[in-house]
Amino acid sequence: MSKALPTRSENYSEWYNELVKRADLAENSAVRGCMVIKPYGYSIWEKMQRALDDMFKETGHTNAYFPLFIPKSYLSKEASHVEGFAKECAVVTHYRLKNDPDGKGVIVDPDAKLEEELIVRPTSETVIWSTYKNWIQSYRDLPLLINQWANVVRWEMRTRLFLRTTEFLWQEGHTAHSTSAEAVAETEQMLNIYAQFAEEWMALPVVKGVKTANERFAGAVNTYCIEALMQDGKALQAGTSHFLGQNFANAFDVKFQDKDGKLEYVWGTSWGVSTRLMGALIMAHSDDAGLVLPPKLAPIQVVIVPIYKNEEQLNLISEKATEISKALKKLGISVKFDNSDAYKPGYKFAEYELKGVPVRLAMGARDLENGTVEVARRDTKTKETVSLEGIAEFIQTLLDNIQESIYNKALAFRDENTTKVDSFEEFNQLLDSKGGFILAHWDGTSETEEKIKEETKATIRCIPLNQEQESGVCIYSGKPSAGRVVFARAY
Amino acid sequence: MSKALPTRSENYSEWYNELVKRADLAENSAVRGCMVIKPYGYSIWEKMQRALDDMFKETGHTNAYFPLFIPKSYLSKEASHVEGFAKECAVVTHYRLKNDPDGKGVIVDPDAKLEEELIVRPTSETVIWSTYKNWIQSYRDLPLLINQWANVVRWEMRTRLFLRTTEFLWQEGHTAHSTSAEAVAETEQMLNIYAQFAEEWMALPVVKGVKTANERFAGAVNTYCIEALMQDGKALQAGTSHFLGQNFANAFDVKFQDKDGKLEYVWGTSWGVSTRLMGALIMAHSDDAGLVLPPKLAPIQVVIVPIYKNEEQLNLISEKATEISKALKKLGISVKFDNSDAYKPGYKFAEYELKGVPVRLAMGARDLENGTVEVARRDTKTKETVSLEGIAEFIQTLLDNIQESIYNKALAFRDENTTKVDSFEEFNQLLDSKGGFILAHWDGTSETEEKIKEETKATIRCIPLNQEQESGVCIYSGKPSAGRVVFARAY
Repeated sequence: MSKALPTRSENYSEWYNELVKRADLAENSAVRGCMVIKPYGYSIWEKMQRALDDMFKETGHTNAYFPLFIPKSYLSKEASHVEGFAKECAVVTHYRLKNDPDGKGVIVDPDAKLEEELIVRPTSETVIWSTYKNWIQSYRDLPLLINQWANVVRWEMRTRLFLRTTEFLWQEGHTAHSTSAEAVAETEQMLNIYAQFAEEWMALPVVKGVKTANERFAGAVNTYCIEALMQDGKALQAGTSHFLGQNFANAFDVKFQDKDGKLEYVWGTSWGVSTRLMGALIMAHSDDAGLVLPPKLAPIQVVIVPIYKNEEQLNLISEKATEISKALKKLGISVKFDNSDAYKPGYKFAEYELKGVPVRLAMGARDLENGTVEVARRDTKTKETVSLEGIAEFIQTLLDNIQESIYNKALAFRDENTTKVDSFEEFNQLLDSKGGFILAHWDGTSETEEKIKEETKATIRCIPLNQEQESGVCIYSGKPSAGRVVFARAY
Repeated sequence: MSKALPTRSENYSEWYNELVKRADLAENSAVRGCMVIKPYGYSIWEKMQRALDDMFKETGHTNAYFPLFIPKSYLSKEASHVEGFAKECAVVTHYRLKNDPDGKGVIVDPDAKLEEELIVRPTSETVIWSTYKNWIQSYRDLPLLINQWANVVRWEMRTRLFLRTTEFLWQEGHTAHSTSAEAVAETEQMLNIYAQFAEEWMALPVVKGVKTANERFAGAVNTYCIEALMQDGKALQAGTSHFLGQNFANAFDVKFQDKDGKLEYVWGTSWGVSTRLMGALIMAHSDDAGLVLPPKLAPIQVVIVPIYKNEEQLNLISEKATEISKALKKLGISVKFDNSDAYKPGYKFAEYELKGVPVRLAMGARDLENGTVEVARRDTKTKETVSLEGIAEFIQTLLDNIQESIYNKALAFRDENTTKVDSFEEFNQLLDSKGGFILAHWDGTSETEEKIKEETKATIRCIPLNQEQESGVCIYSGKPSAGRVVFARAY
């Protein structure tokens, strides 16, 4: 709290890094690329988990748990899957250490070499489909709708807290179906759930779309995604849902007997969101004073800070604060009364701003006399003096308003930063000025996509769903296009 | 469902293994010693997690997340800790695979060798205390009360589903304190929480005690434990809580400035329970027909099975079943109406017995006429016909009774199988007949403890807390003893 945060306009990247650390969300560990998620950060993640888990269960999914380790040979069974993940995986080769004969410490015991190396799961399709083989015989065993909450490891070369870490936490849904249509419907249903979660809980508007072949999940027939826009004009992929076709069923020989007794390969999906969402949440809403949290995900929704000159005043304020806290808790609102005398009110105000507590109540001697309290909103930084009568209901409504207002602000920002562009010059100019989502025509070839990426660092975030039909010519090649796609530089 | 389970008296071990698989709790995976926790098993674990997590939070703990990987050198920093864990740990040595130049498949890329090997955490004291070093400067930063839910890996040579697996799920609490007394109080508090959870949720009576030096956690000053008795007369350690003294603070140089400005090493605790509890739950209560679940942990508390001859009857029964279901759900009771026509009622009865559903309602044509329903208890296998009037409240009370009754049965069993023994002959006889908890005098030396273990395979489960003062002579050495300890063969 000694130094101010770097501002977003000064250095957006440093602002993010510092904010994550100072707001007690996460920090780097001694193991390169692995983070420690601190209690305050973890409590936001827990709220995300709970909300998502409820949505998964409401749509008929159950949780299970599959092993951390994948035999090396399993990874190779699906050709494009191994291509996508082999280059960045942690490999377990031994199962024992022994004392270093040359001195202190321990060394790997060469006699404890594994016959087959194990991969720390980068994602679990292979281990799960090898299991599904035993669980699925008949159409009666389908659909299989399973999710797991787990840690995964991808050996990333450049890492950033929450956005790209070697180990991260996520959920991965893996479902099996008897028809292609049902699997596609599941893929789309989960995409919609992710979008709903992002918008209703994270207050984050997202574009739903389909990835190009280049950006597809390794092993998928089709990858759906939600894309969000950050305040620096860069895009962030916030969740993906994959239609796997029969690829993993083929690789692991998973067949079922249909109603006519015919053996068919099973159709699959997988879908996931991760602690990356924490990065999206932070970057989408926060400001130069610190975090701005949508009330639905805030670990502390209301903080009460007493302003007092003596013990007697503090006691009287505490009494009122206890009443308010009780009334708020009754409405399911989380509240903290910070009566510690180690810090002055000004320090506390700054601290709770940094932590993104949506509503701050300050109560002093005059408030006691008048039966009022000062109510400050974190998102707009506005204050008003409010009567204590019906204060809990007032705050309940206020929290709803804040949630909506944060969403609307993010939506307005995205709308302002979504631009139709019809020439490559304009495209380049825009990328180098404000960035944002750029809607442009593309000829549909990977070649053009890659050239644009090389020259501009912008990628096709998605081919948006439900867009208006419009033909045109590719901004790069001049060849015909079937519709605009969303370009952006991205996290 | 085709074959009956092996019975407990025939082969207790086989009965357990088969029950775990057939009741859809867990199965072995392709990776030696790693299990797949199936959806039904996982939903029981989720209930355990929720209950424990609530208890931890009520006592001021928060969750966080620390890395999966531990640098090899960290493990060595606490001498007895490395001694305890080095022999059974999974070691990551490389971070990439590459295509096998000699053919298909992938091999470990020798160019991607890590400078320092990483250990997959067998427990997280080292990585957490290395982090605490940066979090703790002053007495104001203490106590630090943190828990994490995580997977851990210990390379076990002989594994059994839930009881001993290479990878398992657990929670590990890691707290830091400014005084020894406060750390000891925390250690004892968490032991009491585990005991309360075992008794109130798992319906499992436990003995609270302290481990001998031999059985202590590697790195602890003192290990407290809860020990439960299984139906085959073997003990099962169901949870441990460790007073770490200043051992890890020393190893990682974690000091704090006390109120007088003096630098002191921090005092620590750690405590954990794991998916092993699932094994305890299964083995403590289940019978030859399958699982017996205490209602508080049962994913489905009530199942309704219709018995019908035609569509019309089914429709009428469905109507009533829907009413009952609604009334039960209103009381927070989980209920399933199984109206599938793929199986006959008898098959369904056996299936829900196998799965341990505490209450089964069967409703047929005569019940419709009479306004009744047949209510069957899983634990006692008794049935009665009950009026539909007030059925939901009747079942609510019944579920409470079942919970209590399962606990009382387990308590009576334990009491019957807890024996004071005063000679080594009697000790041996008892071990080879019914087993159980054997209360015997011991001279307090590791030497005697080890000899008894070698000769009888029985270990000292714990030195019980709160036992009556009684001196005597060691059953093995004849030397003086300060009190009886609990011996048993154990899982």
